[in-house]
Amino acid sequence: MKISRIGEFGLIERFRKSISLDASVIKGSGDDCAVLKFDKNNYQLFTCDMLVEGVDFRPGTDPYLIGRKALAVSLSDIAACAGLPRYCLVSMALPKGISVERVDRLSQGIFDLAKAHKLNIVGGDLSRASRLSIDISILGSVEKKRLALRSGAKKKDIIFTSGPLGGSLRGRHLKFTPRLKEARFLAKNFKINSMIDISDGLAQDLGHILKESSAGAVIYERLIPLNKEARGLSDALYTGEDFELLFTLSRQEAKKLLNRRGNNFPPIGEIVEKKYGLRLVDKKGREKVILPRGFRHF
Amino acid sequence: MKISRIGEFGLIERFRKSISLDASVIKGSGDDCAVLKFDKNNYQLFTCDMLVEGVDFRPGTDPYLIGRKALAVSLSDIAACAGLPRYCLVSMALPKGISVERVDRLSQGIFDLAKAHKLNIVGGDLSRASRLSIDISILGSVEKKRLALRSGAKKKDIIFTSGPLGGSLRGRHLKFTPRLKEARFLAKNFKINSMIDISDGLAQDLGHILKESSAGAVIYERLIPLNKEARGLSDALYTGEDFELLFTLSRQEAKKLLNRRGNNFPPIGEIVEKKYGLRLVDKKGREKVILPRGFRHF
Repeated sequence: MKISRIGEFGLIERFRKSISLDASVIKGSGDDCAVLKFDKNNYQLFTCDMLVEGVDFRPGTDPYLIGRKALAVSLSDIAACAGLPRYCLVSMALPKGISVERVDRLSQGIFDLAKAHKLNIVGGDLSRASRLSIDISILGSVEKKRLALRSGAKKKDIIFTSGPLGGSLRGRHLKFTPRLKEARFLAKNFKINSMIDISDGLAQDLGHILKESSAGAVIYERLIPLNKEARGLSDALYTGEDFELLFTLSRQEAKKLLNRRGNNFPPIGEIVEKKYGLRLVDKKGREKVILPRGFRHF
Repeated sequence: MKISRIGEFGLIERFRKSISLDASVIKGSGDDCAVLKFDKNNYQLFTCDMLVEGVDFRPGTDPYLIGRKALAVSLSDIAACAGLPRYCLVSMALPKGISVERVDRLSQGIFDLAKAHKLNIVGGDLSRASRLSIDISILGSVEKKRLALRSGAKKKDIIFTSGPLGGSLRGRHLKFTPRLKEARFLAKNFKINSMIDISDGLAQDLGHILKESSAGAVIYERLIPLNKEARGLSDALYTGEDFELLFTLSRQEAKKLLNRRGNNFPPIGEIVEKKYGLRLVDKKGREKVILPRGFRHF
C-alpha cells in the first residue's frame, strides 16, 4: 500500500498509536510543539521542522532565504504554543559541490533570525545529500498558565487570526515574520483557549483545532482578511504557508481584545458544536460545510 | 570555493565563530551534545544526528535497521556525555512512492530501540524527498557531577575504549548497541576526565579529545582491540561507525577500573603533553605520529 493512500495525517496517527509516553510528557505528538514538564511554573516546548529542496523551496532560491525560512517555521511552532524559543540544533544535508559562499549565506539566514529572537544555536549535524535539506529543532519554554494548545477551543469562542492570509507561496513564505511577539502579547494579556499557526491553510489548520477540541466552527468570508497577493478566498483557505496565528478566545476575552485601540487581530468566526463541522458563510450569507483540506506532503 | 576545500570540520569551525550564546549554555557546538542549565543538580543534553540514504546506509537496507540506526547514533551521543536520554523528535523525508509497510518497519526500528531505553518519542516532522533521510534530536539529562566532555583529558590519564574496533561498515553499523549502560556504569563508579563516542574512527575521535583538552596521546597497537570483521589496525583507526566509547581516567581511577573482576574496558594508551601530538607505538615498539583523520562528509 502506498503512503498516499493513508496520507500524511494517516501516517502520523499510525505513529501516535504505537508510542507510549511517561508522565513527564504533558503533550506528545499532535500539537505544534511537544510539551514537557520543567519546573514549578514553566513547561518546556520541543519542536522540529524539516525543509527539503524542491518541496519547501525551489532549487534556485537565495540560500539566505532558505536558512531563514528553515528557522522561521520552527519558531512559528513555538509561537503557536505562546512560548519563548531558547535553544536550537541545525541539521543540514548539503550537496557535495556546494560552495562555501552559499553555505555562508544559508547559515547567515539562520544566524540573523536566531539573533533577533535571542535564540542560542547550540549544535547540529552536517551530512551530504544530492538535494539540500535542513531540519531545525528548537527547545523553548512557556509559563504553565500561558501555554496555548490546539485542544482548548470552547463553544461560543471567537476565532481570530494575526493577519491577512493567502498568496504566501508567491514569495512571502520565504520572508515571513514568525508571530512570537504577537503570541506573547496575547498570552500575557488574554486567556487563549486554543491556538495554532497556519502552515497548511486556514481550513486544514482550523480543522486541527476543531478535531483536538471536539468542536465545530463557522467562519465568515467577509471577515477573512486576504493578502494582496492572494488570488481569492481559496488561497487563504487551502494553500498554506501563511504562518499567521489562528486562535480562539472566550466572548469575554474577545471583547477585551476587540476594544483595544489599534487591535490588529481580526475576528473571523466562532466556535460551535462539533456536529456542525466546519462551515463557511459566503458574502451572500449562504452557509456551506467545507472540508479541512490543505497542503499535504503525501 | 568548494566546501571540500575547508572540509566538514572547517565548516563547523566557521559556524562556531559566528554564534553567540547566553550564560545558560554550558557547552554549545563542539562536543557530542550541547549542555544546558537545568536544575540544581542536573544539566540537560541536546543532540541530533541526520542519516541520509546513499551516505549512511545503502538504498537496499532493511528499513527496520535504518530506523534503528537513526536513533542509535543519537543515543550514542547521549552516552558519550554519560547522560540519560529522555525525549526525542523524529524528522523523516520519505520518497513519495514508499509503501506503508516500509514506513511501518522504519518506525518500528525506532520504536523498539526507544522503548528499550525508556525514551519518549514526543513528535517530529514528515516531508517528502527523492531519497530517504531521517534526523532525530534527543533531549536528555545528566547529573552535573557525572557530565563527561571531550575537554577534560589530563596528562598521564589512561585511555580506554568500551569494546573492539574496526570493520563496523561490514554490517555492525546497522545493529550496534549504543553504550548508554556502560557510560552510566562508568559515570557512577569513576571520575571520567573525558569521553567521546567513536563515530569517525579512533584516530579522528581521539583527535577531538586531544584538541578540546589541549593534549597529546600515545596509543599502543598491541592494546587496541580489533573486531573480528576488522581487516587490520587501519580499520580501527580510520573507518569509524564503531560507536564504542573512548574515555580517559586518571591513573588512580584507571587502577580501580582495571582491578574490577571481569573488566570489559581495555586500556589502549595514555595522555601526554600536547607537543607530542597523537602517536602510535606499533607491535615492534616503533613510535610514529599519526594524523587524526577519519570519515568526513566533505
